[in-house]
Amino acid sequence: MILRFMATYEQYKKHLIKIADLKNALAVLQWDQEIYLPLKGAGLRGQQMATLSEQVHLLSTEEQFGNILQDLLKKDILTAFEKKNVELSWEDYSKQKRYSPDFVRLLSETISRSFHSWIEARKLRSFERFEKDLDELIRLKRQETGILGYQTHPYNALLNEYEKGCTVALLDKTFHELRPALQSLLNSIMTCEQVSDAFLHQFYPKQQQWDFGMDLIRQLGFDFEAGRQDLSEHPFTTSFNKNDVRITTRIDEHNFGSMTWSCIHETGHALYEQGLPESEYGLPSGEFASLGIHESQSRLWENSVGRSLSFWNHQYPRLQAFFPEQLGTIALSDFYKGINIVKPSLIRTEADELTYHFHIMIRYELEKSLIEGSLSAHDIPAFWNEAYEKYLGQKVPDDKIGCLQDVHWSHGSFGYFPTYSLGSFYAAQFFVAAQKQIPGLVSQIMSGQTENLLQWLGQRIYQSGRLFTSEELCLKATGETLNIQYFLQYLLDKYRKMYDL
Amino acid sequence: MILRFMATYEQYKKHLIKIADLKNALAVLQWDQEIYLPLKGAGLRGQQMATLSEQVHLLSTEEQFGNILQDLLKKDILTAFEKKNVELSWEDYSKQKRYSPDFVRLLSETISRSFHSWIEARKLRSFERFEKDLDELIRLKRQETGILGYQTHPYNALLNEYEKGCTVALLDKTFHELRPALQSLLNSIMTCEQVSDAFLHQFYPKQQQWDFGMDLIRQLGFDFEAGRQDLSEHPFTTSFNKNDVRITTRIDEHNFGSMTWSCIHETGHALYEQGLPESEYGLPSGEFASLGIHESQSRLWENSVGRSLSFWNHQYPRLQAFFPEQLGTIALSDFYKGINIVKPSLIRTEADELTYHFHIMIRYELEKSLIEGSLSAHDIPAFWNEAYEKYLGQKVPDDKIGCLQDVHWSHGSFGYFPTYSLGSFYAAQFFVAAQKQIPGLVSQIMSGQTENLLQWLGQRIYQSGRLFTSEELCLKATGETLNIQYFLQYLLDKYRKMYDL
Repeated sequence: MILRFMATYEQYKKHLIKIADLKNALAVLQWDQEIYLPLKGAGLRGQQMATLSEQVHLLSTEEQFGNILQDLLKKDILTAFEKKNVELSWEDYSKQKRYSPDFVRLLSETISRSFHSWIEARKLRSFERFEKDLDELIRLKRQETGILGYQTHPYNALLNEYEKGCTVALLDKTFHELRPALQSLLNSIMTCEQVSDAFLHQFYPKQQQWDFGMDLIRQLGFDFEAGRQDLSEHPFTTSFNKNDVRITTRIDEHNFGSMTWSCIHETGHALYEQGLPESEYGLPSGEFASLGIHESQSRLWENSVGRSLSFWNHQYPRLQAFFPEQLGTIALSDFYKGINIVKPSLIRTEADELTYHFHIMIRYELEKSLIEGSLSAHDIPAFWNEAYEKYLGQKVPDDKIGCLQDVHWSHGSFGYFPTYSLGSFYAAQFFVAAQKQIPGLVSQIMSGQTENLLQWLGQRIYQSGRLFTSEELCLKATGETLNIQYFLQYLLDKYRKMYDL
Repeated sequence: MILRFMATYEQYKKHLIKIADLKNALAVLQWDQEIYLPLKGAGLRGQQMATLSEQVHLLSTEEQFGNILQDLLKKDILTAFEKKNVELSWEDYSKQKRYSPDFVRLLSETISRSFHSWIEARKLRSFERFEKDLDELIRLKRQETGILGYQTHPYNALLNEYEKGCTVALLDKTFHELRPALQSLLNSIMTCEQVSDAFLHQFYPKQQQWDFGMDLIRQLGFDFEAGRQDLSEHPFTTSFNKNDVRITTRIDEHNFGSMTWSCIHETGHALYEQGLPESEYGLPSGEFASLGIHESQSRLWENSVGRSLSFWNHQYPRLQAFFPEQLGTIALSDFYKGINIVKPSLIRTEADELTYHFHIMIRYELEKSLIEGSLSAHDIPAFWNEAYEKYLGQKVPDDKIGCLQDVHWSHGSFGYFPTYSLGSFYAAQFFVAAQKQIPGLVSQIMSGQTENLLQWLGQRIYQSGRLFTSEELCLKATGETLNIQYFLQYLLDKYRKMYDL
């Protein structure tokens, strides 16, 4: 009996590993597409990726695999750990089964077309070129909410795809609490004397920026034997397994911050991937918990660590040695203020830690309306421009730096944006817990030592894979579920001191 | 009737395209492995490639696909062109059917392991680290000869995989004719006053070499919108489709020739791939004819064009402008002699056009013995070192520049080397035919114009895909089948003039 059963759990693992291998092959093709693909190669690369996706879908929905899962779930002999894995795989399997191959193909084709027209629309700096394809994509995503099933609000079905258990009710409540607090803090800051960040916009040569970024990444613990960094238009992280994690950055010779904090941000993502348990490759226990938790890791390193005075206490002399002409006469305290300047702006990815969340809330409200059907694609630019005026006091000069700035919708990724805010909230809460649990953490950071923090994250977050939801993980790591007061307090402490409020 | 039939030919095409998509995905993973893979990523990358290989094999041997092929072959309604395609696919299918999925996976995994132990062995400069894995690989390749089937000699089964119709009998005969002719020419040259190539070994900075190479490639017609060049330890070409062809080069700052002729060589391969008919993607009519023909394209550009006085007549002033300090005082005639110097040496890829074939003949004899079982992996270093002493008068100082110098065996590519010699023979014969058929070809080359040559190759070679064997192609392009006298005459003419024999 036991022998027969063990063989079946092995079969289950073997099948999942095969799926993971193909998914990761697909990820290699995507990585290459973003960084190295020659112009004319795009068409057939798209087709090659579609064929691979089809193979992944076929393997993921194989009848025999379903039988193995059901058989395993009937037994009482699995360890709790194994049972959790199989339950999650059964959830995944059942969900995949609900999609018809026709729908999968149609969605994939529409996404390819939309991505292309998004690129075109950006060139024309006009939403119009994108509208028709996006409209069709929204129609399909609304259809998908029916396929996935939901309670109360159709948007819940999509939110749940990126952050299990996340709902409109929960986000409405959270943002309702957040918005006035941020607004009031922003108003206070706007009455203060503004700090200067002009020194960040001097000329910083490309090669030296690259070298500094690589040095930084290495110090933070990125394992270059298990990953690499390259250049791309938009920084991202991808992982083919914990021993091959790839990050990218971009270098703007007149904006030093762009490279630096994208390096730290992506390293945060990468440390999570490099820290996943190797023996669990392909299984839920070897995957990241959720996008919100993933983002918490990038934000924790980028902001809680990478924008702190403690961190730069150690790093700044090194940075000055890299750029003596640009920074030799800038005091650390001024550097710290400059890199933390609060200033409403048009572009989400360049926003400061405070105004960033207005960008997210605007997208959240917009997506919610699009998916419930109270707004259509046609309404997007007007809604967008009005919201930017209202919440950030920004006039949008054209759609390219307005509602065309993010790639997400062209990929059909509705429900993704809120995880960026959730990530910040979790990050703040995790960092407070880490400070409580690691004696002398801040002094360690002040002397350039982040190993203990990394180890703590490994134990509290990385090692659990996807076996716990974000809320369960948060409870285990911090003693309570998500509480945005940690994030608000972090901002208050930081900006009160910095702006002398 | 016709409608039903057409649908079936479309089914055939559709299935082949799907296989091609997965094979090309695999090629992307291989390319990345050679150039960008981090150290620790090797293990799981090997597994991912094995899983993809398995999927390719499953698709290639699907029962239903076999039925489509058989059904099509029974009909009399296919065009001759279509029929040829289907016949070749049936051959491929029948061959694939002979492999068990277990064997495919085992071979793929053993290759990944061997590749990495080859890398390790090279670091240690000792064959010992590689021996065990290579031994296992040879065992599998010998097993494969039984799977493939053969007449007379097991090595024929493997030779046939790279060059259809190639046999031990044919190669024995060819090399038997070649060896004394080359030996006699080499002996004459060795009695002459040696030319100098010292100027090639001055310091040539990396970036300038790269720039010159890129310029050269562009001039030869490499389409950078349908491909790219990168750096790798060993130069190679790979293609994911005619619109995405990747070549690599290596740069040695004290050996200018290494970069230059590897660039031209790989461009020759790439022009072939970029010139394949787009509409035939995935079909035999869209694939290269054989490895010998592929190599004929690289050799034709590298040697017949790229080492000719006519070619450098145009290029040399440009080169001098890139490197005035290094080459400003070197006359074209001395440059020409230096780049064509005949000098027995240890490394195949750096050998001159004459001694090169001794390197191949040594590998050929060795492989033949390994596959027939009269030698084992353990015997390789001794056999190698003795042969290099005997044929090239070279003492092998260590295995890295001895029997570990080529990647081929670690890839399981036994039977591949002879195509390098065949490629040279075909190249010489093709170039004579091209000169006859293109009026003023040499003067065109003298003024830097190679478009007509490229067009000629496109029409005579590229456009036929794999519909003809090497011998058929050669007959169509040159009016006769392979005749090594063209190659011998080419060498005689060149060296008699150069060494004043």
